[in-house]
Amino acid sequence: MSNDSSARIATGLRAWIRDAAPGAQLPATRSLVREYGASPVTVQRALRRLAAEGLVESRPGVGTFVRAVRPARGPDFGWQTAALRTPRAELARVAGPLQTAPPEVQALHAGYPGPDLLPERLVRTALGRAARGAAATARPPAAGMPELRSWFASELADATPGHLSAVTARDVVVAPGSQSALASIFRALVAPGRPLLIESPTYWGALQAAHQAGVELVPVPSGADGPDPDVVDRSLRETGARAFYAQPSFANPTGAHWDVDRAEQVLAAVRAHGAFLVEDDWAHDFGIDAEVRPLAAHDDGGHVVYLRSLTKSVSPALRVAAVIARGPARDRILGDRAAESMYVSGLLQQAALEVVSDPGWRTHLRRLGGQLRERRDLLVAALREHAPSLALDVVPRGGLHLWGRLPDGTDTARLVRDCAAEGVWVAAGDEWFPAEPAAAYLRLTFIGPDPAGYPTAAAVVERAVGLQHG
Amino acid sequence: MSNDSSARIATGLRAWIRDAAPGAQLPATRSLVREYGASPVTVQRALRRLAAEGLVESRPGVGTFVRAVRPARGPDFGWQTAALRTPRAELARVAGPLQTAPPEVQALHAGYPGPDLLPERLVRTALGRAARGAAATARPPAAGMPELRSWFASELADATPGHLSAVTARDVVVAPGSQSALASIFRALVAPGRPLLIESPTYWGALQAAHQAGVELVPVPSGADGPDPDVVDRSLRETGARAFYAQPSFANPTGAHWDVDRAEQVLAAVRAHGAFLVEDDWAHDFGIDAEVRPLAAHDDGGHVVYLRSLTKSVSPALRVAAVIARGPARDRILGDRAAESMYVSGLLQQAALEVVSDPGWRTHLRRLGGQLRERRDLLVAALREHAPSLALDVVPRGGLHLWGRLPDGTDTARLVRDCAAEGVWVAAGDEWFPAEPAAAYLRLTFIGPDPAGYPTAAAVVERAVGLQHG
Repeated sequence: MSNDSSARIATGLRAWIRDAAPGAQLPATRSLVREYGASPVTVQRALRRLAAEGLVESRPGVGTFVRAVRPARGPDFGWQTAALRTPRAELARVAGPLQTAPPEVQALHAGYPGPDLLPERLVRTALGRAARGAAATARPPAAGMPELRSWFASELADATPGHLSAVTARDVVVAPGSQSALASIFRALVAPGRPLLIESPTYWGALQAAHQAGVELVPVPSGADGPDPDVVDRSLRETGARAFYAQPSFANPTGAHWDVDRAEQVLAAVRAHGAFLVEDDWAHDFGIDAEVRPLAAHDDGGHVVYLRSLTKSVSPALRVAAVIARGPARDRILGDRAAESMYVSGLLQQAALEVVSDPGWRTHLRRLGGQLRERRDLLVAALREHAPSLALDVVPRGGLHLWGRLPDGTDTARLVRDCAAEGVWVAAGDEWFPAEPAAAYLRLTFIGPDPAGYPTAAAVVERAVGLQHG
Repeated sequence: MSNDSSARIATGLRAWIRDAAPGAQLPATRSLVREYGASPVTVQRALRRLAAEGLVESRPGVGTFVRAVRPARGPDFGWQTAALRTPRAELARVAGPLQTAPPEVQALHAGYPGPDLLPERLVRTALGRAARGAAATARPPAAGMPELRSWFASELADATPGHLSAVTARDVVVAPGSQSALASIFRALVAPGRPLLIESPTYWGALQAAHQAGVELVPVPSGADGPDPDVVDRSLRETGARAFYAQPSFANPTGAHWDVDRAEQVLAAVRAHGAFLVEDDWAHDFGIDAEVRPLAAHDDGGHVVYLRSLTKSVSPALRVAAVIARGPARDRILGDRAAESMYVSGLLQQAALEVVSDPGWRTHLRRLGGQLRERRDLLVAALREHAPSLALDVVPRGGLHLWGRLPDGTDTARLVRDCAAEGVWVAAGDEWFPAEPAAAYLRLTFIGPDPAGYPTAAAVVERAVGLQHG
């Protein structure tokens, strides 16, 4: 009977606790006795029961309180695995090159230029001005700010020969960064389960976006000069693929830079198969010994879907990229962008436009080319002198990275760990391959914050190789 | 012979033109005569041929120039239709509510508060400060800035009763706006072709995101009090769906606000089927006569995936939203976000954090509630007096919209056109239905920029109805 009573009181108090804030004091025993018409002993039994359940704690002489500390044993989310099923593709939660290194580390694994290589003053001024202008509280059109679209179009139109019809602002779709642009391009151009040709090795972010879109990847080997046009032709024919993703200029990771003949031959193969070439011009602003000549400037048949981003060259905070495409392809891509994010922050678009319209932007790019040359040469020299086991097939004429081949049989994961233990972060080449890596590679960025430490870092890499091959 | 010669000259000049800038002057006839060893007549014939092809234009007495004006007939992109195939789902390129109205229009179709309802001073100050700080040139973690994630978590944890385990910053994934968050949630929780329960009518952006994800929509009728829990239960059972997308608080468009019992019953059905409730708390900051009590605060089993955005209440330029989810579901969503956009601009995250951390934010929200009440009441009164044909079942206790039913048989597209012709933009309810509309509805926002014009606008709507039913 008193057990029943205490259960009744406990039920009432559980409902009370459920709506109470953590730390709230329960009514005094005296008033509970009155409220429930029960003895003090029965009320105490109910309170002990709630304490055992972890819902309250009593502080002798003060009162009983809703537990502020949450139950130690976490909830069980096992049921979710039935609802979620096996994932279609394994998406890395945080890719290696995105990992943030502690400041004391020699970080050669990442791909984002630091503040010393950015037009920092221009960026801050442009953002400050945008914060005071209309863009701070307005919503731009889904395809992007007209002035910014015009700028992206004019950059490509300026490189277009006179006999070809140049792109216009209408062909431009602004996206919040090149990763979002890639995701939309793949979704818009290639249905799930359908084939997509892709260089191997290639940018890991593109691999992630392709996995997310659920397309079937068809790797096309790509070496120091880019892919073999005959292999592109054969792969398009064999698979029925209608799209080929490539980085014709300063490719990440290989540094390959297609010459004019190669570019025309690949374009011819793409045209012959009624297909798209997705040209990821990621390093447009990172020319060192050569300038980028976009393939998109030599096609007005809508075969090249062109992607250019300002995130890496202006600031990682300015997530602004552009897709330039013509015909129905452009409409599909815009439709996907609208469904994915409706529009891109007008503040970021306005600030990006101010930066690239400033005369200081060209000055910055010239200075940047010199900085990149100096750092590239320093890292190349350091590796050649202190890490002879790492073979550099190409000294890239632009971009941000070196791609070095390790002795056959090297365990790259172990090598990365061994280097990290010595304070040097490098990236295993494996992440850049759409299938098993063709060989053991390292990707090393030459925009790490401490160029003076390159020789030491190279020696660390060599020692780590020696641990496996010594 | 001279025909052959002119063809040879034309071929040579085409190559020259191809690499020339628009407007460049061709070599003089005299020098072409010399270069090609041809007569002036033959050179002229070649030039006329190029002019006929649209490649050059001659200015008598001046010279011949590469055409600056591109060919009038555009390229043919017909081949793309074979490559692109029929789209999986028709994605609207620019949805009705996103269309930008000219300033002279009474715009009751849209859903974004204008500057008069935004914390404009806070936004500009926060953006200006962020432009000067580290966030302007740095890259934040993929899941979002830790401090901002903590803020989102604490907002929900503060509403969580003491006996439940509250969410932490780890459960929060920052996204660039709620549309992007929705797209990721649907992709992460529901495989293509699998069913997703969704209220009918519901937010058109959610319908777009669901179409993009390729899921099968299962409409659940939802009226003034929200959906019938028995129908939710039956639909989950019949379809095997493992997720239900809903707006339990101030639903867009109906204004429905679930009471505590309704919320518990729907949650119970969702739990019983091992499913997720995707709670889109879009109007958290837009309470008028009631506050939002998130369902997510009453679930610690990982069943509620919670979405909250700051875009509408802080500024359309600050595309910042948060998904709060637990267990493997959170990991899947983060994986999709990383593949989709890698990270969200740290500048926008920093500015958003500054705004909501400022004491002025609470002051703003209180003032905003009053402004919304005043405008809602004005529009309701105007419609009741001047547009009696429009039936308002619910006067919403929060949100930004009214949902009015038109006489049966109204052609909503024609009504929208007729109103627009009189300078009043309204939105046909059709866009909020995942299937055929259950009846003819209009959605009218009460945050239009000209409240004094509401009576006139209401009269316009009534006249337009009269044109069809008079």
